[in-house]
Amino acid sequence: MIPALHHPFHAHDTRNSRLVKALRGERPAKTPVWFMRQAGRSLPEYRALRNQGTMLEACLDPALASEITMQPVRRHKVDAAVFFSDIIVPLALLGLDVQIAPGRGPVFSEPVRTAAQIAEVIRIDPALVRERGDAVADAVTRTTAMLAEESEVRGEPLPLIGFAGAPFTLAAYLVEGGPSKDHMAARSLIHAEPTAWEDLTMWLADVTGQFLALQVEAGASVAQLFDSWAGALAPDDYRRAVLPASVRALEPVRAFDVPIIHFGVGTGEILTDMASIGVDGLGVDYRVPLDDAVRRVGRDVTLQGNFDPALLFAPDEVRVAAAHRILAEGLAARAHVFNLGHGVPMDADPAVLTALVETVHAWRAP
Amino acid sequence: MIPALHHPFHAHDTRNSRLVKALRGERPAKTPVWFMRQAGRSLPEYRALRNQGTMLEACLDPALASEITMQPVRRHKVDAAVFFSDIIVPLALLGLDVQIAPGRGPVFSEPVRTAAQIAEVIRIDPALVRERGDAVADAVTRTTAMLAEESEVRGEPLPLIGFAGAPFTLAAYLVEGGPSKDHMAARSLIHAEPTAWEDLTMWLADVTGQFLALQVEAGASVAQLFDSWAGALAPDDYRRAVLPASVRALEPVRAFDVPIIHFGVGTGEILTDMASIGVDGLGVDYRVPLDDAVRRVGRDVTLQGNFDPALLFAPDEVRVAAAHRILAEGLAARAHVFNLGHGVPMDADPAVLTALVETVHAWRAP
Repeated sequence: MIPALHHPFHAHDTRNSRLVKALRGERPAKTPVWFMRQAGRSLPEYRALRNQGTMLEACLDPALASEITMQPVRRHKVDAAVFFSDIIVPLALLGLDVQIAPGRGPVFSEPVRTAAQIAEVIRIDPALVRERGDAVADAVTRTTAMLAEESEVRGEPLPLIGFAGAPFTLAAYLVEGGPSKDHMAARSLIHAEPTAWEDLTMWLADVTGQFLALQVEAGASVAQLFDSWAGALAPDDYRRAVLPASVRALEPVRAFDVPIIHFGVGTGEILTDMASIGVDGLGVDYRVPLDDAVRRVGRDVTLQGNFDPALLFAPDEVRVAAAHRILAEGLAARAHVFNLGHGVPMDADPAVLTALVETVHAWRAP
Repeated sequence: MIPALHHPFHAHDTRNSRLVKALRGERPAKTPVWFMRQAGRSLPEYRALRNQGTMLEACLDPALASEITMQPVRRHKVDAAVFFSDIIVPLALLGLDVQIAPGRGPVFSEPVRTAAQIAEVIRIDPALVRERGDAVADAVTRTTAMLAEESEVRGEPLPLIGFAGAPFTLAAYLVEGGPSKDHMAARSLIHAEPTAWEDLTMWLADVTGQFLALQVEAGASVAQLFDSWAGALAPDDYRRAVLPASVRALEPVRAFDVPIIHFGVGTGEILTDMASIGVDGLGVDYRVPLDDAVRRVGRDVTLQGNFDPALLFAPDEVRVAAAHRILAEGLAARAHVFNLGHGVPMDADPAVLTALVETVHAWRAP
């Protein structure tokens, strides 16, 4: 597959955006900031738009998904939009019976757990994600057009971050059949059925890689791979049974000239491995101070993070001091993208997020 | 309070047990082994006994609790019993409206979250745990008598491990009102209401300290403090807002001559702090190899762990090899107590646990 369009030739050029520059290793005067799950339930305008229909229907409604994607950009003045979607969207496009249960997460009608069930599922051609992904591409195209307009207003280019789930995190839901605390079903399968596990995760790599490439081809300027639950793995298992599939998942987007971010929660023990697959940005959990993360992964990667979402509920002066501490710690890295160390909690006060963006933008390196 | 009995004068002397020796820093020829949650739903004989009544009723029924405590000792030939109870038992004794929901965990009728709610709760005198704890003391006394008999049969002393929840982990349930994935309510309270948070955790320290001392006074030979969810904290918050309460929780048992074990899940970033409070054994999560843990915490503490429960579902040869690897890694520590890196999953095959005990006992240091 030859990518039809490289970003430099796109109408909406985001190469000089703060986010893309920081991910390339530069240090813009203002540190770029965005929030994982910035588009979503913390915003009243989101709840107003999402008052009917399922989450999956919203993801596959181009007008709705693009509008939701834009809401936090307009409100918080963050430096990037992150596409409103869900990591299980490509599995839904392939016909798997999955829903996103409100307040709970992805739930499959039946878990895919035995070797026979896995053999059945992986017969589905991952290329169908592309063929059936018009709604996704359309939503991305609409969003980039809206971002181009917003960029005019703001006087600076605003990129769209596309994203996909990493094979392990997708498998954690698929094998369990839904969310779980310890992802034991998936983690057990690694040992109980190593061949079936490899088949499943390599298939998931192709599926999610297609989903990510679809977004980038349609106009996303940055690609983030979410391995949200990778921190549940013993480091040896991560390296042996998970990392190769994540490498494969990123292959389709490597053909495009977009920076790649890799993120997971509770990943202190595998941070070096996560950086090793060749990414431009590495998301760091709030449990590892950024300067400590630099000692682990070196200075060949930009760090993203790592404000503890719990601090969104702190008094103003505590919150500002914590943001300043993180910005100072981020100076140890080659460049820094400010973010939360995890997603926005649904009960976060939007005004606090807006104020946090202002705090970050007002800060200057000493 | 002057402890009435020190263990050396107890009829059932466990000072020469493998577990106590290892926790004191010696290396018995056979590495001691027990499993967190060894008494419980993975055993058919447990499910047969627990076919009616609530979990809390079972914890407060001395005949039932002691029998359940003994089941895995008899079946698996582990080196210690761990008292069948729950970390929220002392809160139930104090009259808080809490139940242990099957398959879910502790659920309070209402969360204790505001400064006013906290002020109300902490008016309850923690000393009432002792006054109302006869059923707990009775269960411990019965268990140690049964252990003394079993020790005769086995020809080696078998200790009872008493345990309690650390203040943060109790607060994580109490503030949330039940189990949660990220313990956000408790972690937010640290920042939103720092004074109320300190009051609550110091009160919980006294409550859980009384519960632990009660078990030790009644005959438990080892005390384990479970800070299961401490790994959810940013290290700075752990040190500042959590560790002091854990120190205080252990004060009542320090009057007794019993080794103390400290444990939490996902604690790689705070392992050194957890060891710093002066404990004999430190439980290590399956994500941190034991030799790596020694590099972090030094050789003044015995390490406990850290077989990944997911490996209980692996083929025999994979399981045995993993156990041997962990035993070899444990040689880096001053001494090693073999355990899982987390609790026994409810669907674990009991025969596999028994075989794992045999593997550990058959192994000899090279």
